Amino acid sequence: MSEAAGPGHGTARQSGALPIETDALVIGAGPVGLFQVFQLGLLNIRAQVVEALGHVGGQCVELYGDKPIYDIPGLPFCTARELVERLQQQVAPFQTGYHFNQLVESVAREPDGRFLVRTNAHTEFRARVVIIAAGVGAFMPRKLQIDGASACEGKQVIYHPTPDQLGGAQRVLVLGGGADALACALEQASQSATEVTVLHRRDVFDAPSALLSEFRAACDTGRIRLKLGQPIALRHGDDGTCLLDIVTTAGEAQSLRASLIAAYLGLSPRLGPLAHWGLAMERKQLVVNTENFGSSEPGIFAVGDVNTYPGKKKLILSGFHESALAAFGAAAIVFPDKPAILEYTTTSTRLHRLLGVESKPVI
Amino acid sequence: MSEAAGPGHGTARQSGALPIETDALVIGAGPVGLFQVFQLGLLNIRAQVVEALGHVGGQCVELYGDKPIYDIPGLPFCTARELVERLQQQVAPFQTGYHFNQLVESVAREPDGRFLVRTNAHTEFRARVVIIAAGVGAFMPRKLQIDGASACEGKQVIYHPTPDQLGGAQRVLVLGGGADALACALEQASQSATEVTVLHRRDVFDAPSALLSEFRAACDTGRIRLKLGQPIALRHGDDGTCLLDIVTTAGEAQSLRASLIAAYLGLSPRLGPLAHWGLAMERKQLVVNTENFGSSEPGIFAVGDVNTYPGKKKLILSGFHESALAAFGAAAIVFPDKPAILEYTTTSTRLHRLLGVESKPVI
Repeated sequence: MSEAAGPGHGTARQSGALPIETDALVIGAGPVGLFQVFQLGLLNIRAQVVEALGHVGGQCVELYGDKPIYDIPGLPFCTARELVERLQQQVAPFQTGYHFNQLVESVAREPDGRFLVRTNAHTEFRARVVIIAAGVGAFMPRKLQIDGASACEGKQVIYHPTPDQLGGAQRVLVLGGGADALACALEQASQSATEVTVLHRRDVFDAPSALLSEFRAACDTGRIRLKLGQPIALRHGDDGTCLLDIVTTAGEAQSLRASLIAAYLGLSPRLGPLAHWGLAMERKQLVVNTENFGSSEPGIFAVGDVNTYPGKKKLILSGFHESALAAFGAAAIVFPDKPAILEYTTTSTRLHRLLGVESKPVI
Repeated sequence: MSEAAGPGHGTARQSGALPIETDALVIGAGPVGLFQVFQLGLLNIRAQVVEALGHVGGQCVELYGDKPIYDIPGLPFCTARELVERLQQQVAPFQTGYHFNQLVESVAREPDGRFLVRTNAHTEFRARVVIIAAGVGAFMPRKLQIDGASACEGKQVIYHPTPDQLGGAQRVLVLGGGADALACALEQASQSATEVTVLHRRDVFDAPSALLSEFRAACDTGRIRLKLGQPIALRHGDDGTCLLDIVTTAGEAQSLRASLIAAYLGLSPRLGPLAHWGLAMERKQLVVNTENFGSSEPGIFAVGDVNTYPGKKKLILSGFHESALAAFGAAAIVFPDKPAILEYTTTSTRLHRLLGVESKPVI
């Protein structure tokens, strides 16, 4: 298996910090990744989790958090967010390290058979098994597809910035019409020295009504300037600022000057570096066997929407089943001398201890 | 595939009644059988269900109804009974016929490719597909393993009788120490003409405390006679009664006369007639493929604990996954000209109509 870095993440390895030792590294903290941690826990396998987003829940929460799901067995109705909260509660008994806002960049086999796993935030893990529960991929910000944008990325243009990435900018231009864009604009406008403009393609915004009212009030009082139109090109200004050429909805060409552009153009999933690890793939999915959901590389498993096999359906409940069988596949590697035995949570006192519940004596 | 009748069920087919027409016949109404009905329903496949017990829930409710389960994804804790209640609620939107207290006895392929399915209660079905969700088998009453017992079966000896099977008996002997045995004894003792004896191997009973108190009171007042000991042999009396030879816990030989013996010796699972249908099996389990959980006979599927495949773990959650994929396998037969497309309950207005929930318009 080759060690390949994904595009745009060719960062040098940070020396000094030792790799985090773990039995299993789980990539992705969506519902299937969370349940994977639970199933590993039942078999005494410690896990660390790397997640591209800043929170658990994956596409489930990111794309349809408040929408209903009706086909989780035993849950006639729940929202995606509720499902994730329930899974968090279920996995709580197990000590697990979560590493947010980072992408696994490379995986390399060490001489002793373990994997050295590295993220784009320079976190390193040494793991006996790697379980990929990456869904449809890591959710990455959509980029501005106009001339001059890539040259300014990370300088005048920041995608989905956190508040501390914007502190001190004088002229902020916010792109987008979602809740995160409006919240960023209001936050910036609350700093009196900052001039804030929002550019969105039309006068319709996708945000909770309270936030939207606050935004409209800020536009009415002039604290935020609202422009409706499309960006066309980005140019460097002479004073470190940049100029965004736009066409307004009225068809007028304008240029907006900004010291910083905060772009909230949505997130789209990308498989990213995973696609270059040399694992067998079919149509951008990892080919697995249905015995333990192992990939073509021994010790690397794939569960949930990221995998494929004959009959595969992209159902959350299939990912749950896959994670249970993958846990047994992982156990065979983590405990090679002691085959894992299926014990039931209903009756096993060992599992009751692990879960922190009391075993009632059998009459 | 041969049409084979199970032992002891060689009943003649009742003429007159037409077979019930259905898309799918599901054998077993445990959690996996119920969720199978749900998954079939999402694909517009109508189902009928045959169940050996008198209620839904299968071994889950029969063996550990009030015990906790901790490993159903999204349900950090529930009892087996709660899980089944939740599944009943989930499956409620679909019109399904349940046929309790009967065993599927034979399955025969008709000239048009459909299956003619017959139960030991003479119910007949004509189905395009059969899905076996029979768990560890049908729960059948344990038999009295003593000389003379089999000759009296169905005459003086009845296993797990319902109240109407006992009406009018003068001397009733109840065997067993569970709730059903005690309830039967109390019911019989309430009829003044009936003399009731309970035989149990020791003075410990497995019944709710209210029932147990009532039973103890009936023993104290002499309405019920309690014998502690083991049955040894059964003999015919000269007057249509029978004599049960026992050894008491004190080591004394006695004979108990009875006009009827109601035996509650527990239930044990048996695969029954299924085992003789000619389907490929391994260690008493049906061999299936993991693409759609089809058995060796096209159109017959097997899901849950009854099946086996490489990596199989007897987990409820695996049965749920299997039932989803089996539904797609069934759809390919029920709707051969229209491949089933996976739609999501979160977004599909067709599924929302089926489930009787309102679709919210997308903004």
